[in-house]
Parts: sequence; structure tokens; C-alpha cells
Amino acid sequence: MAGKKTGGLAEVIAGQTAISTVGKEGKGLTYRGYSIDDLAQFGSFEETAYLLIYGKLPSQTELNQYKQKLSGLRKLPDGLRTILEQLSGSTHPMDILRTGISAFSAFEPEALDRDQYDIADRLLASCASILLYWHHYHTSGTRIDTETDSESIAGHFLELLHGRKPSGLHEKALDVSLILYAEHEFNASTFAARVTASTLSDFYSAITTGIGTLRGPLHGGANEAAMELIEAFEGPNEAENGILQMLAQKKLIMGFGHRVYSVSDPRSDIIKKWSRTLSEAAGEMKLYDISERIEQIMLREKKLFANLDFYSASAYRLLGIPTPLFTPIFVISRTSGWAAHIIEQRAGNRLIRPNADYSGPDLKSWPAIRSRS
Amino acid sequence: MAGKKTGGLAEVIAGQTAISTVGKEGKGLTYRGYSIDDLAQFGSFEETAYLLIYGKLPSQTELNQYKQKLSGLRKLPDGLRTILEQLSGSTHPMDILRTGISAFSAFEPEALDRDQYDIADRLLASCASILLYWHHYHTSGTRIDTETDSESIAGHFLELLHGRKPSGLHEKALDVSLILYAEHEFNASTFAARVTASTLSDFYSAITTGIGTLRGPLHGGANEAAMELIEAFEGPNEAENGILQMLAQKKLIMGFGHRVYSVSDPRSDIIKKWSRTLSEAAGEMKLYDISERIEQIMLREKKLFANLDFYSASAYRLLGIPTPLFTPIFVISRTSGWAAHIIEQRAGNRLIRPNADYSGPDLKSWPAIRSRS
Ligand SMILES: CC(C)(COP(=O)(O)OP(=O)(O)OC[C@H]1O[C@@H](n2cnc3c(N)ncnc32)[C@H](O)[C@@H]1OP(=O)(O)O)[C@@H](O)C(=O)NCCC(=O)NCCS
Ligand SMILES: CC(C)(COP(=O)(O)OP(=O)(O)OC[C@H]1O[C@@H](n2cnc3c(N)ncnc32)[C@H](O)[C@@H]1OP(=O)(O)O)[C@@H](O)C(=O)NCCC(=O)NCCS
Repeated sequence: MAGKKTGGLAEVIAGQTAISTVGKEGKGLTYRGYSIDDLAQFGSFEETAYLLIYGKLPSQTELNQYKQKLSGLRKLPDGLRTILEQLSGSTHPMDILRTGISAFSAFEPEALDRDQYDIADRLLASCASILLYWHHYHTSGTRIDTETDSESIAGHFLELLHGRKPSGLHEKALDVSLILYAEHEFNASTFAARVTASTLSDFYSAITTGIGTLRGPLHGGANEAAMELIEAFEGPNEAENGILQMLAQKKLIMGFGHRVYSVSDPRSDIIKKWSRTLSEAAGEMKLYDISERIEQIMLREKKLFANLDFYSASAYRLLGIPTPLFTPIFVISRTSGWAAHIIEQRAGNRLIRPNADYSGPDLKSWPAIRSRS
Repeated sequence: MAGKKTGGLAEVIAGQTAISTVGKEGKGLTYRGYSIDDLAQFGSFEETAYLLIYGKLPSQTELNQYKQKLSGLRKLPDGLRTILEQLSGSTHPMDILRTGISAFSAFEPEALDRDQYDIADRLLASCASILLYWHHYHTSGTRIDTETDSESIAGHFLELLHGRKPSGLHEKALDVSLILYAEHEFNASTFAARVTASTLSDFYSAITTGIGTLRGPLHGGANEAAMELIEAFEGPNEAENGILQMLAQKKLIMGFGHRVYSVSDPRSDIIKKWSRTLSEAAGEMKLYDISERIEQIMLREKKLFANLDFYSASAYRLLGIPTPLFTPIFVISRTSGWAAHIIEQRAGNRLIRPNADYSGPDLKSWPAIRSRS
């Protein structure tokens, strides 16, 4: 087995990318050269997705056309709805997205008349439809219409979830969160999707790999785990004691630490402000206050900083999103980054196939079956 | 973009494994210390899967129990059958397996009472059921019973496919092929499955990643591509001319070359003998003769040797297997190797998250939307 501090390809350069920088000195996080702060302040998620997938910021006309294209891609194939109805309500929603997107390939396969850009846009536009069609069918027996006239993916998601138009504040908060989650270089799910793409497999296979990889608690699953942690405490003091105890037991505190960032996660400051704004607007500061205390303790005790997942948890709760849908929202957003990386991998492809260091037994002779114990 | 001769993690050691050796001097290919020659000559696929997953060769009692366990796991959940019926007959069978196994997680999720070993065995036993239930439903409208009394996975597959018990020769040939395909160190699909497992995602996610990655023509998909190539020729001389032409056009010849082996693929000699035996038994030497000529030309012209996929193609054709089911058979077999690697990854886990070399633009200031072109 690899020892704790080696392995995991830490600090190994696995290839080149022109899509984003993570933790580069003086650059923080940029998507195709634009800082995450500017994107979150001035941009929208649709602009961000266009930038990542098509390689440039859209003009006003291009953005309008892109939003219109995406809005027209929210309806699900009938057969896919039937499939979602077969997957019980107790299924993990990440299993729903992984299966739903894998099944999509049967209805709209990658082919000459449906290329990688079309599939990327289709999946971006319809992830929320898959998730929330399944959600409502199994919670209330309703077969919802997955089309809304919302112009944004954030608005579409919230309207499908709550059955009414969200406030401008809520729509904007989710939109910013989607921008922050969109892309992050060779993180585990993106890297895995690139390995899949490197065998020249199809687009759906690579996205399915991304979803399955994001699902784990060391990666996307951390936002759900962080919520469970935060909600388990009655207030900041109880949280302080609880966290100290967990640290003494060498437990991982979800939503903290990062493989590449060593000082802070530039996305955390942004989502933290939004979490505060949403808390103030709702007049509910409890989760925010608990979160802040946990953040202070982790910094004081372990010099570990909050990553994007930590304050996303309270922000999503304030948007009325059930915890099991947190990581699926990450999927909706990261589909844009995965798509950009699959396209990049294909453009300069070489099979990703590393070597292993063999640590098993030497050659053995074959034992007759009666001589085995 | 990475240049053609760098990248792809070639020669980079991505971790340790005790499961198999690929291309180690003096050892060829071994599974947990046993040579592939001994396994193919003396073992069965069930013995091999047990060895890979449980870490030792089974005693006679253990093997009997294991075969009985596997035979009892061939029935599919009702909902899964309904899902397979929704996926049209023109779907790529690899998309069926990827979707079917992803959907399995909804019916039998990984949980305290269903651990990784149980899931590995369940998937090994029921991959053929998924594939052939779907196949018959869409080719003849029949809802087949996926249980047979065949003792082997090879026999189960052939009986479900052809609707009758296979000959001993055919069952043994497929059994050997499953042994050869079972495990191959950090090949792309196994490595991708390990990346998925490294986020502590669930077992189904990791296997789904493996399937999606195997699907590509540079990896598992090569056996189907090899068949299409071989069948396109009328005879050895035509094949010789055709291959020389393709090489002059710098085309890839599927079923040749390997990232790690440099002299030969030890599995190819074994499957070549079986392809010959099957051809002689059927009195149909055409595909074999064409294959042999292509092999000679590739060695003479490019010093490239046949890999496992090349002679598997003609062997499978002689077993009456339709080409689109070739790579899915690879899945049935490789599920054992993937399972072993997922279990190994979990036992000594560290998140697999490499770095990237950034080749994109420097920091840019944000352009107002009206100023963009
Ligand atoms: C993100 C993460 C997987 C990075 O992993 P990594 O680079 O392999 O880091 P390591 O596991 O080697 O951690 C280094 C040390 O910090 C500790 N550490 C890291 N993250 C920690 C956390 N969230 N809580 C407590 N301790 C933590 C480790 O236990 C280890 O301590 P040790 O040196 O005493 O063994 C890791 O920080 C983590 O598991 N965080 C929690 C999950 C999470 O929030 N994931 C989302 C990331 S965006
Ligand atoms: C297996 C494979 C992906 C390994 O890839 P790799 O280690 O990245 O090897 P490269 O692509 O760098 O190949 C090295 C050289 O051999 C050539 N080559 C490799 N395999 C070839 C093949 N099957 N046919 C023709 N030329 C081949 C490459 O074109 C390259 O030539 P160049 O130096 O003139 O550019 C590659 O051999 C291949 O594509 N084979 C065909 C698909 C196949 O059979 N896959 C199943 C593998 S078990």
C-alpha cells in the first residue's frame, strides 16, 4: 500500500491544460485567464459555461443565443422518464444523475449529427430536469413538466425544485455558486473523465465517470457531509467542543483542506459572503454562526482553511435545498468544466496509462487444487 | 497540448499494486504471483476471479461454494429489466452495461449488509444477464429467463446467447478468454476506476467508470475494431495489400501495440492457439489465415506485435458471438480485476489528484459585455 504521505499523484504533473489555474502564485483561480472574483461578480453561469466550453467570453448576441439554446433543451426523452420512475426514492441522487446521464446515451448517442458541444449543452441544460423529475415523482408522485421559462440554469433549478419562481436574491446566489463550482483543473473527477476520454470513448462515458468520481466524500460529497456536521450542533460553543473532540479523535472535518491550495481557497471567501447575505435576508444566523466558529477553530488548531464546500452547505440550506441534492448541484455546474477538459483531451490525445510499482509475491508454481488449504 | 511522445503518464509510477505484473522482466504477466500460462492451462475463470478478489487460489470446497454463489446471482431485479427494455436495440452494448450497472446501485446499494465483495460477485454473475436480456428483448422481443444451470460464467453467457448449451470446446475457449482479459495492472480503465474509488465513492461508481473507459477503441474497443478490419478482407493477400496501404496512410491497426509490453503480449500466444483450434474444429480457416498474415506484416513493417485483442476477434467470431458483444465480454471478465483494484485502493487510500502544467493565457481584465466581439 502507498504510505499516507506519498501516492495519490500529489505534485505529479499529469499533463497540460489551458483551461484553469489552481493555486498559481499571483493568479489564484482563473478560468481561461479571467479571475474567479470577476466571474462571480460580473458574470453569469451561462457566460462561464460558454467561456469554458467554447473558449471565449460570449458577446451579448452569442450569450442571448446560448441561453435560448439551453432553455430549449430541458425536456427529457420519454424513455428516460420511465427509467427515472424505476429508480426508487431512496436512491442516492448522485446515482440518479450517473444513471440518467449514462442512459441519455441510448436516446441521443454521440454521432456525426450530434457532436461533443451539443451533448455538453444538452447535459448542462437537462441535469436539473433529470434530478427534479425523479425527485418529485418519488416524493409526491407527480410527473412534473421539466420546462420552465426561466432564463438561467439556477432559476430553472429552483423553480423546478420549489414549484415557484425564486426571488432574484436566491437565483443570483445559486448562480454564483454554479460559477464557483464550474471548473477546477485536474481535480479527481475531471482527471478521471480525461482518463476515460483518452481511450477515445464517447462523451457520455467521460461525464458518467466524472459524476461517479465526484460522488465521494473526499471530493464533491464533502458539501453534504459538511451540512450534516454543521446541523448536528446547537450553537457555536457546542460546535467548538464537538470539533475539538473530533480532532482529538483524528477525524476528518469535511469542507476543510485541499490538495493544491496551501493558504486558502479563493472560492471560499466568495461563497461565505453569500452565505452571510442569505442568512441576514432570512433572519436566520444560526448555521452561519456555527460555520464561522468551526472555521476559526480549524484555522487555530490545524491551520486548515475552509474550502468551497464548507460555506456552500449553509448557503444551499438557506435556498431551501435538501441536503442530498447538494452534490448533484455540483454536477450541474461541473459538467461545464468536465466538457471543456474532455474537448481539450481529445484535441491532443494520448492514452493515459501509468505504470505501477509491483509489491506482490514473486512467481509461484501452480498448486494442484487438492493441495490447497 | 501534450506532444505525441510525452504525456499520458507513460512510465510514471502512479502507485503500488500487489495484484499483477505487466511486462516485468522474467515474470511476464502474473496474477497474484501465478503466471498467465498456468492460469489459462490449469485454472478456470471462477478460480481466477476468486484469486483476484479474495487474494488466494480457492480450495476445492471454496471453489464449489463460490461457483454456487455466483450461479445464484444471475436473476435481475424487475425494475432493471424494465430499464433495459427502454434502451433501444441500436444502443451500443457498452452503453447498456454502463447504464445497467449504474442502475444496479438503485436496487442493491452498497451498504453495511451488502459489502464490496458481495457487489463484485453479484456484478460478475449478472453482467451477462444484463447484456443478453437486453439483446434478446430488442432482437426478438423475448423476455428471456436469465438463469441457467450452467456452472461457469462462460457457459452461462453462451447458453443465454444461443439458447442452447455450448459444446465443451466452446465453453472452454470462452473461459480461457475470460481468464486472459481478467486483470492487467494500471491499464486505463482500472486506473480510472481507482481514481473514482480514491474519493471514497461507492463500488458501482468505480465499476461504471471502468466500463466507460474500457469502451474506447484505444482500449477494450480494439477487439471490435480488429474484427471489422479482419472481416473486410477476402483473403491473406488482399489483407497484406490493405494493411500496407493503411500503414502508408499512417493509420492505426487495431489489436497491435501496447503501452507497456515492448516485445510481445504473453496473452496473444495463448488466444492465438485457441483461435486456431476453434478454426480447425469448424473447418473455417479464413479469418485465422488473414489474421496470421496481418500479424506477419505488422511485425515485418512496424515491429509491432499482436496484443490480446487481435486473435480474440476471430476466436469470438467462431463462437458465434456478434461483434458488438466483444467488448462487453471484456467487461464481464475485467470486472474481477477492477474489483480487486478498488478493494486494494480503498485499503490504502489517498485521493488521486495530480497537478497540471498550465498553458493558457495570463490574467486578463474583465471586458464589459458590449465590448466583446
Ligand atoms: C481535500 C483532501 C482530500 C486533501 O487530501 P490530501 O492532499 O491527500 O491531504 P492529506 O490527507 O495528506 O492531509 C494532510 C494532513 O492534514 C490532515 N487533514 C487534511 N484535511 C483535513 C480535514 N478536513 N480535517 C482534519 N484533518 C485534515 C490530514 O489528516 C493529514 O494529517 P496528518 O499529516 O496528521 O496525517 C483532504 O483535505 C480532505 O479529506 N478534506 C476533507 C474532505 C473535503 O473537504 N473535500 C473537498 C475538497 S474541495
Ligand atoms: C495501445 C496503444 C494505445 C499504445 O499507445 P502509446 O503507448 O501511446 O503508443 P504511441 O501512440 O505513442 O505509439 C508509438 C508509435 O507506434 C505507432 N503505433 C502504435 N500502435 C500502432 C498500431 N496499432 N498501428 C499502427 N501504428 C501504431 C504509433 O503511431 C507511434 O508511431 P510514431 O512514433 O510514428 O508516431 C497503441 O499501440 C494503439 O493505439 N494500438 C491500437 C489499439 C489497440 O490495439 N488497443 C488495445 C491495447 S491492449
